[in-house]
Amino acid sequence: MTTPAWQALEQRMVELRALRSTALLLLWDEATQLPARGAAARVEQNAAVQALLNERTASPALGDAIETAAATELTEDERAGLRVLRREHARAVALPSDVIREEAIAQGEGLAAWREARERADFSVFAPFLSRILRVQREKAAAWTHLLGGGPQVEPYDALLDEHEEGMRVARLLPLFEHLVGWLTPFALARSTKHLHARSCISGHFEPTQLFEFGKELLGAIGFDFDAGRVERSAQAFTAAFDPGDVRLSIRAEGNRPLAAVFSALHEGAHALYEQGLPIEHRRSMLCGVPSAGLHESQARLWETMVGRSRGFWIWALPRFAARFPQLADVSLDSFLGELNRVEPSLLRVHADEVTYNLHIAIRVELELALFRGQLAVGDLPDAWSDAYARRLGVRPTNDEEGVLQEVHWAYGGFADFQAYAIGNLYAASLYRAARRELPGLEDSFARGEFHALRDWMREKVHRRGRRDVAEAIVRDATGSGLSDDDFGAYLVNRYPIR
Amino acid sequence: MTTPAWQALEQRMVELRALRSTALLLLWDEATQLPARGAAARVEQNAAVQALLNERTASPALGDAIETAAATELTEDERAGLRVLRREHARAVALPSDVIREEAIAQGEGLAAWREARERADFSVFAPFLSRILRVQREKAAAWTHLLGGGPQVEPYDALLDEHEEGMRVARLLPLFEHLVGWLTPFALARSTKHLHARSCISGHFEPTQLFEFGKELLGAIGFDFDAGRVERSAQAFTAAFDPGDVRLSIRAEGNRPLAAVFSALHEGAHALYEQGLPIEHRRSMLCGVPSAGLHESQARLWETMVGRSRGFWIWALPRFAARFPQLADVSLDSFLGELNRVEPSLLRVHADEVTYNLHIAIRVELELALFRGQLAVGDLPDAWSDAYARRLGVRPTNDEEGVLQEVHWAYGGFADFQAYAIGNLYAASLYRAARRELPGLEDSFARGEFHALRDWMREKVHRRGRRDVAEAIVRDATGSGLSDDDFGAYLVNRYPIR
Repeated sequence: MTTPAWQALEQRMVELRALRSTALLLLWDEATQLPARGAAARVEQNAAVQALLNERTASPALGDAIETAAATELTEDERAGLRVLRREHARAVALPSDVIREEAIAQGEGLAAWREARERADFSVFAPFLSRILRVQREKAAAWTHLLGGGPQVEPYDALLDEHEEGMRVARLLPLFEHLVGWLTPFALARSTKHLHARSCISGHFEPTQLFEFGKELLGAIGFDFDAGRVERSAQAFTAAFDPGDVRLSIRAEGNRPLAAVFSALHEGAHALYEQGLPIEHRRSMLCGVPSAGLHESQARLWETMVGRSRGFWIWALPRFAARFPQLADVSLDSFLGELNRVEPSLLRVHADEVTYNLHIAIRVELELALFRGQLAVGDLPDAWSDAYARRLGVRPTNDEEGVLQEVHWAYGGFADFQAYAIGNLYAASLYRAARRELPGLEDSFARGEFHALRDWMREKVHRRGRRDVAEAIVRDATGSGLSDDDFGAYLVNRYPIR
Repeated sequence: MTTPAWQALEQRMVELRALRSTALLLLWDEATQLPARGAAARVEQNAAVQALLNERTASPALGDAIETAAATELTEDERAGLRVLRREHARAVALPSDVIREEAIAQGEGLAAWREARERADFSVFAPFLSRILRVQREKAAAWTHLLGGGPQVEPYDALLDEHEEGMRVARLLPLFEHLVGWLTPFALARSTKHLHARSCISGHFEPTQLFEFGKELLGAIGFDFDAGRVERSAQAFTAAFDPGDVRLSIRAEGNRPLAAVFSALHEGAHALYEQGLPIEHRRSMLCGVPSAGLHESQARLWETMVGRSRGFWIWALPRFAARFPQLADVSLDSFLGELNRVEPSLLRVHADEVTYNLHIAIRVELELALFRGQLAVGDLPDAWSDAYARRLGVRPTNDEEGVLQEVHWAYGGFADFQAYAIGNLYAASLYRAARRELPGLEDSFARGEFHALRDWMREKVHRRGRRDVAEAIVRDATGSGLSDDDFGAYLVNRYPIR
């Protein structure tokens, strides 16, 4: 069946995927293995591999190979893979090399400036660098806009959005957020326990090694395949997927944040389940990949919150947790769950509860869009940030570190990626609802430590689809509905009744 | 001072070094981190990076950049760096791409066949693959021979030798080995303790974790910089150097081979000291590298044997070793050293004592040359191997596994590299003699755990020279004499007196 033209193209896809995973290995190694004095060489290694990857992705020879293959008879899967590759090639071709260079410099210097600004809790140190990063992002967007096919409502920011969430547009995203924020703000306020000052039942010192071991126990329980990956510890949790057969994650294990170990294991473990579940038969094609950041995030949020904050899960997990940490021996399930699921408006997204979480996202997405459009000046950002937090969450940062400087994303050029966190929550709620409908007694099975039914359902409905379709089509096939906040609302109402 | 032409060339050297260290990182990761199911993707990653590295090293644009820079005014260091780069470029250009492809296939299949042959202790399984590997090696040599500049005595094998030991020729190597073997055979026989069957004083179970910790303690003592490297455990000890600031080693730590942990730490640690000591100011040029495999090995053998088997070293180390392993508490220094320094002709090189060690090397080098020249048929190799062991060492393998199949090198296309082990011993003895002459009381200082004087001497005399000169010139400058077995003979006579 497979034509010589396709085989030639496949060779190129294998090379692109290999270079991409090699670039990622350099980053993984940097985060987990690199000795301090190896940093200078690593900068050069990253640059060399990234430059080659750009060169190969944009190469005219790849373009020719794509069009030659497109003119032959292809299977449906091959045609789907070709679509993905053509899209990536077109994006690479459209990006001028001086923008790539400028982006690398702006991000390198921006990251250093952000670190310094954060240390000094002074946004003005970072401001000129953010302006420069913004300029580069606008140039990127301008170079890509024509790839979107036009339409009256298309704007440059859409070109960035489309990279992370294919098909998403500002014209759709803003109303969605508006609706979500509309009901979520009073919902959160009504459930806020901010002024209760209840004493924490999860206190004392938690031995980090035991936390890490417990994290690995959870990974094993949810079905992470240790023969197809590995687990490390680091201050920042993250997942690096090189291949369905090699998915590595790093989880947190700090003595003063025991729940961060649990939730980072579930969150990153879920990202890893997704990657391990990708269609292995397509590992020589672009289909063996993920269609959107939001869909990826849906898996992480589903396991972290919908499973990991459920009563069923903790019926099983709490005795195991307490077996490693004697200070939990006398803690009742109810008080533990109460502690776990407190709603409390706060300043930092990373520590937010799952009710207020999306308000953090909404604030950031709106401000970023205003910045990008030029409706908000960089110099006015700190005040705009503080005002938004005061208005939406009722809390006001006392300095820039706990305000506008709290996230690193902008510093490394991460634009149009934050909406994925909210979209992930919405997709997760829809998928979780569908899974519970199709797998009766699901939450009861958690109480027995049985999680494989959920993993296998997700594997079948989501993971194995790879990049054959855009995210929303996959979710619609699995749940019967596309992107909306209905299921998420129903989920929150159910889990957070008014006390 | 630096010309634009040199800067352009430097950019290319930085890229080449970055790609080379990235290729090495893939191998290091494979040996220490890769999960079982990640192997398929790793094959593709290795191939992609290696292909790009070959392409860039052979590229006409690099050739142009070399000649453009060569025509400008350069510093002495720049000219030395240019010489090294030109040599590597010429070798890459001369190698036909079908030979590269054939080599990759022959080695991949050869390795698998060698593993199977070894399991079945049956050379005939490996024989056809070895024939094919030999054919590829002959093609490589033929492609490179013209680079040697001719001369009446030059033969194709020299082109392979020259890659590992620049300037070395068969016409010099064979007489050197003949001389060495001439006195070493009776020397070893006179000191053989083969039939004594003394009970080992180093027995019992040694906790692997403690062995590993002791290995790290030794690394710290000899001056390994843990901020510029890391240490792992694996069944095979090895060193992977990415940059003077990032040198990683893996040491052995098996409960039934406690001394292998000690000696692998000293051996690999010494390779690592060399790499950490390379001229960091030249890290953007080819000068930041090692000129020969033999010189690299000299460092390893010096620390492993000349230091690591000395009385001074164990005066300091034995109490520390015994503190971790109570079973050594009653072992006297003399009986420990007697055990350590037993001379015993044996079948396996990797377990050979330092007296008989070079006889193993000589046998292999002679047989390999005979194979390469077509003087020995592949089918006759097992018998030739066994006969050589019987003649030289008085032991005869009972099967192919402990005979001709014992080393993996041929299987992955390692040709003309074994002489480095012997050359390393000779260089080591000369360097050690010079160091003792210039650093009075050196061995006494070992007894106090002071090793930095030796490391610093070696750093100044050897490591910091990088690739500015060929190995023999560096050794001659450091010791007053070039490659010979005089100092090695004197060293052995001194350390192994007739009992």
